[in-house]
Parts: sequence; structure tokens; C-alpha cells
Amino acid sequence: MSERVAVETPVLRKNDEYAAENRRWFTERGIAVVNIMSAPGAGKTTLLEKTLPMFGERFRCAVIEGDLQTDLDAERIRRVGVRAHQINTTCCHLDARMVQGAAETFIDALPQVLFIENIGNLVCPASYDLGEHLKVTLFSVVEGADKPKKYPKMFRMSDCVVLNKADLLPYSGVALEELLANVHDVSPVAAVFTLSARTGEGLREWVDWLSGKIGEVRAGR
Amino acid sequence: MSERVAVETPVLRKNDEYAAENRRWFTERGIAVVNIMSAPGAGKTTLLEKTLPMFGERFRCAVIEGDLQTDLDAERIRRVGVRAHQINTTCCHLDARMVQGAAETFIDALPQVLFIENIGNLVCPASYDLGEHLKVTLFSVVEGADKPKKYPKMFRMSDCVVLNKADLLPYSGVALEELLANVHDVSPVAAVFTLSARTGEGLREWVDWLSGKIGEVRAGR
Repeated sequence: MSERVAVETPVLRKNDEYAAENRRWFTERGIAVVNIMSAPGAGKTTLLEKTLPMFGERFRCAVIEGDLQTDLDAERIRRVGVRAHQINTTCCHLDARMVQGAAETFIDALPQVLFIENIGNLVCPASYDLGEHLKVTLFSVVEGADKPKKYPKMFRMSDCVVLNKADLLPYSGVALEELLANVHDVSPVAAVFTLSARTGEGLREWVDWLSGKIGEVRAGR
Repeated sequence: MSERVAVETPVLRKNDEYAAENRRWFTERGIAVVNIMSAPGAGKTTLLEKTLPMFGERFRCAVIEGDLQTDLDAERIRRVGVRAHQINTTCCHLDARMVQGAAETFIDALPQVLFIENIGNLVCPASYDLGEHLKVTLFSVVEGADKPKKYPKMFRMSDCVVLNKADLLPYSGVALEELLANVHDVSPVAAVFTLSARTGEGLREWVDWLSGKIGEVRAGR
């Protein structure tokens, strides 16, 4: 894999430059940016569908949706009354330049909070800084208690780990205590929430934490 | 992303050369090679743990395990009495050269069937031919009925799609008919099996199909 390492380094360096530019641009305009990452089907869109209405009038939000194909997710976000811009890419992750282009589509009425729903992939998005202020890793509990140890990079760099599909725990054979211990081992400083976006169980604690963090970012703290 | 496309093309071309070499080498030696791909936590290792003992004495098997970190999966395979070689890589997929190196570790007693458990990723492994004879996409039904449409490349190129965790269907809110229709739309020629590797439900049909296909490969058909 020496070719791959050799060719990726300048790509990542270039990405970091774009990401720094994004972060400055967002911060100057008081836009808090949240990058939500997970494996496919962990429930990123469902979490957003349920979270956005709970903000009520508190923040003006917008969502950038990353997908390989289809604009199903952007449509779902628009149905809860929030603006969404779809990025369709053949790439396995979003990068900072794609986010820059997408953010500019909201220029007429800048959001106060910009959510980025990354491509469903627990590996590659961890290497690409997008210029966000908060990284959230969403994880479906039925993926198994060992996964934080097997995909440590994304967990380690996250400000928050959301364990979703908690309603399936009794049927899944997955031990929540073991999963929580593994999350804590890999990512000792992340805030951790166990919830079910589908049933609504546990959502309030996550929304309260997120609102507080968004407030801190927008206040420049 | 123009840099990325530009730099990846020669990497992919080089990989295809290694893959063709692998396929020739495996075929000449009567080794049927099965590449199992899925998102993280869809149950690749559990499927292998349950499938391998069902072959009984029929085939001498070995497994190449791809992982970002840990050798937990190779250990699980060895516990069912099958040789396993672990590849730990920082990369988001296995490539043909990694497989070449790993296959050589079995040179003293070549297997008749070599399973490759790819990195848990529904995106990148689809671009890397490993020199395998059969591609299997494993999918956890709780990831949602829309996913074949959102990650079409891996489904489209697969000889077989295994829908796992069928035991969770009644609790998941996922409609199996819709999922099956989406799999069929994206991948009309793939054999499709709905099963639960954990409970054993539906495993026999998959193992029978796989045994038949392995027989065809080894007979040079």
C-alpha cells in the first residue's frame, strides 16, 4: 500500500487547508457546524429528523447530506421543514472542499447550525476534517459490542458518541455494559448517549447536550 | 476531488494486475476464493463461524481476516478449527497485493476454499478486485430497506447477497419485502438469502448454494 500512502498525503494536506478555511468562515459568521458520521444504516437521517423539530425556534438549521446515490435523505430532512443540500459523490467520504461548495448554497440566509450527514462509512470519514466544530459518531448497538475497538479512529476523535437503536438491545444479544466499556476505553472524553431515534427514548438528553455545545460554539467558547 | 480520482486510477490499475495474477494462481491450484464484504457489524465473522463447521470434511478451508485493529476475528475463526491469517491495515479496504501476501502464509498446506473477510465498509471494498471467484455482500436487515439503492455498487457486483439478522425483523420496523425488492432492482442476478447467522435460521440454503458454487469453481466451470 505504499503508493496509496504516498499519494494520499498531499490530498489530506490540501483537505486540511480547506478545512481550516471552512472553520474560520463558519466561526466568523456564528455558524456552529456538526459532522455526523456512522456506518451505513446506523440511523443518521432518522436522528436528524427527530432532533431538528426538538430545537423548535431556538436555532435556524440547515443540513448537508452526503450520499453515493439518491437524494432520499435530503427529501426526508425537507419534510421536517429544514433546508437540505444533497451532495452526490462517488467518493467514500465528504471532504472539506465539497462542504465549502455545499455551504455556499445557503448564502442567502445563513443557518445558525449546519449539520453535515457524512457518507455511511465508519472508516474513511475519520481522516477528513471538514472544518466542523463538533464530531458526532453514531453507532447502532446491534453492530456489536466489539466495534469501538475495531474501528477506533472515528470513536477516538469524536466529541460525542450516540448509541442508537437501543430499543433492539433486548433482542440483539449485545451487552450494553460491554459496549459502553469499549466506547469509554477508546474514547474516554466523549459524551455518550444511549437512545432510540425511532422510538424517541433518550432523545431529550442528547438534544440538551447538543444545544449546550452549539451555544458554546456560537458564543466563541 | 479531481486530485483523488487522478491519483487513484494508477493504484486501481496496479491492483487489477495483482488481482488477475491472484486469480490465475488460485485457479491453477484449485482454490476457490470467496470475498465477503459488508458494513461494520453486519455479521461477517459470525456467518463464517457458523458456515465453516457445516462444510464438515467436504472442503479444507482457510480464512484471511481484514481489520483496522485487533485480531479478535481471526481468534474466533481459529476457535472453530479453521486456519486464519489476520491482516491489520490502516486502509479502508483490502487490496489484491495484501491478499497475495496473506495467501502465501498457507503455502505449506493449501486450502481448497479461501474465504476473505474484508474490512467492514460498504463503499471502498467494491472498487478493489482481490482475484476472488465469488463476491458475497452481507447486509444486516436492520440497516434499513433503502440501503441497496444508496450503496448500489457493492450490491450490483455481487454473486450473492446475504440478508442477515432476520431474527430482528419483527422489532426493527424494516419491511423485508421492500428490502428484497430494492436488492432485486440493484442486483437482479445475485442469489439472495435471508437468514440469521446467530440463530441458525436459513443457514442451510446458503451453505448448499455456496457448496455448489465452490464445486463449480473448483471444477473449472
